[in-house]
Amino acid sequence: MQSSRSPVPAGSTVVLTDHPWPDVEIERSVFDAAGYALIAGPIETATAAEVERLVAAHDPVAIMTCWAQVSAAAIARPSDLRVVARMGVGLDNIVVPAATQRGAWVTNIPDYCVEEVSDHAIALMLDAWRGVTQFDRAAKRGEWNPSSARLRRIRNMTVGVFGYGRIGAATVRKLSRGFGCRVLVYTPSLLKSAPGREIEPGVFATDIATIQQEADALVLHLPLTPSTQHWVNDDFLRRCARRPLLINVSRGPLIDNAALVRALDAGLLSGAALDVVEGEPAPPAAVIGRPDVIVTPHVAFSSDASLADLRQRSSEDVVRVLRGEPPLNPCNSVAA
Amino acid sequence: MQSSRSPVPAGSTVVLTDHPWPDVEIERSVFDAAGYALIAGPIETATAAEVERLVAAHDPVAIMTCWAQVSAAAIARPSDLRVVARMGVGLDNIVVPAATQRGAWVTNIPDYCVEEVSDHAIALMLDAWRGVTQFDRAAKRGEWNPSSARLRRIRNMTVGVFGYGRIGAATVRKLSRGFGCRVLVYTPSLLKSAPGREIEPGVFATDIATIQQEADALVLHLPLTPSTQHWVNDDFLRRCARRPLLINVSRGPLIDNAALVRALDAGLLSGAALDVVEGEPAPPAAVIGRPDVIVTPHVAFSSDASLADLRQRSSEDVVRVLRGEPPLNPCNSVAA
Repeated sequence: MQSSRSPVPAGSTVVLTDHPWPDVEIERSVFDAAGYALIAGPIETATAAEVERLVAAHDPVAIMTCWAQVSAAAIARPSDLRVVARMGVGLDNIVVPAATQRGAWVTNIPDYCVEEVSDHAIALMLDAWRGVTQFDRAAKRGEWNPSSARLRRIRNMTVGVFGYGRIGAATVRKLSRGFGCRVLVYTPSLLKSAPGREIEPGVFATDIATIQQEADALVLHLPLTPSTQHWVNDDFLRRCARRPLLINVSRGPLIDNAALVRALDAGLLSGAALDVVEGEPAPPAAVIGRPDVIVTPHVAFSSDASLADLRQRSSEDVVRVLRGEPPLNPCNSVAA
Repeated sequence: MQSSRSPVPAGSTVVLTDHPWPDVEIERSVFDAAGYALIAGPIETATAAEVERLVAAHDPVAIMTCWAQVSAAAIARPSDLRVVARMGVGLDNIVVPAATQRGAWVTNIPDYCVEEVSDHAIALMLDAWRGVTQFDRAAKRGEWNPSSARLRRIRNMTVGVFGYGRIGAATVRKLSRGFGCRVLVYTPSLLKSAPGREIEPGVFATDIATIQQEADALVLHLPLTPSTQHWVNDDFLRRCARRPLLINVSRGPLIDNAALVRALDAGLLSGAALDVVEGEPAPPAAVIGRPDVIVTPHVAFSSDASLADLRQRSSEDVVRVLRGEPPLNPCNSVAA
């Protein structure tokens, strides 16, 4: 394993496994200018097997991926793989140790969509609390019934936020400074360093149980790891005291879909607003078809500005590695 | 005309013309305790003629109204009318001079829904810019297509706000402090006192033309008066340069519906999000049925907290007048 290596030869191939945006012009212009060949997979998320076939067919020096699973087999296959680039933040779809083991970098772009994902979480929350999507559905059916409104004064709400990285901190700041909500934040490091402390005006570091007892909304800003998978399950939901709204803008498998449906049916939650759902891109209709669930199709990261930033910087970091330099955003340690 | 008068007799009648909330228990408990009789009209907005008939039938000492038109004839009819109470902020449905002329107070509750209406404006804006309602509609049809997202980075947006009263100022504060938007505010008094000035960080007093040139969204926080009726008309819309989103949480007739439809068809606007529509409670399907229009049925004022506050304080102010005292929230001048 080495951190500075000889550049790969001109004309070497970069494989892009999937791209949930309509074209690959930005990526292609970066690689064209640098003298590398880009092979793009489908817009839709490819399966792990499809990625393995794509890699076997093109022997790439770099694999770029958005949501497709990049398996240990896909990582092992190329003759001179230098980097696996996550076009996004989370690394749950890449077998990072397999890359590290063969001396390939894993990169991401940790900060390109902080504004977007935090805005999206708040958009979903406001939508649910102000009844926007539900009333629009009714209006489109010809119903105009203001007396049916059961809305909330947002300033009086307590919001529980799980996770306090870049995105979680942005959501917390917008909720407290913009709307005057009381915010309870759970993250292990804060809980250890500042249990119960007001970390900024109206924002308190707390434990999971306090959030379950006191929150009117729950926002998930967690990475997907073995310890966060099905973070929201039957046991978690049974402890929620105030019929909270559940918001997920992170990863679908943080929530056990079956437990979510049971909790909605039992009235343990007042509703859910989900940008990510386990089973996407074909999430179960039993979840997303419910009138008390608002759904967007994994677009919280997306904006004109964030996509341009992600695609440009991600491609440039791959070029940097292919020229023999270390990446700007390494996620593993590739020793010299 | 007099500001302090003898109390009305016990058992006198208060007429409530309409109430877009499901019951009148709060109002009834205030009037029961004070010894007056409450006659409640329908939940749905009554016509001016229906209000006149209700008033003729019950000879009230007070008329309370939410959205129903209280005509000069309705105000002239009772033998001892002391107050016309608007259960809300705007006075456009009450012929105020007719009340003043006969020495009856007109009251409102100017501050009960500042949080709600400003939250609702922002909920509609975020919903449109993050695609929530539109994507939820697609998901309910079984579509899951993230690559179709054409979303905006909200921090980069310029928002034009017309009106800077209590509610307008709250929207401006939430947009600038919460989301970091650049905000352009138009109101005649600010334009006169501080043209072009940054009135708080990121918030600028400006004229209508600058907003039309530079804004990515237009928010109406104006009262309905003869000079604001059809404020947004063909001429106004033709001058909008950046295909803004149009948001109305004030009064439907601020917008000329036909001009709105023409502007959407012509691509002068990227969409509209409306809590109020001229023609409500049966607004034209040509407006509210469009996929690029998001609609809620005049509920921006509504929340658990705001309704309880409005109904209690409005009823108490009527009782105050009926006991011979001046109201806390007079909207006209009833001289002694």
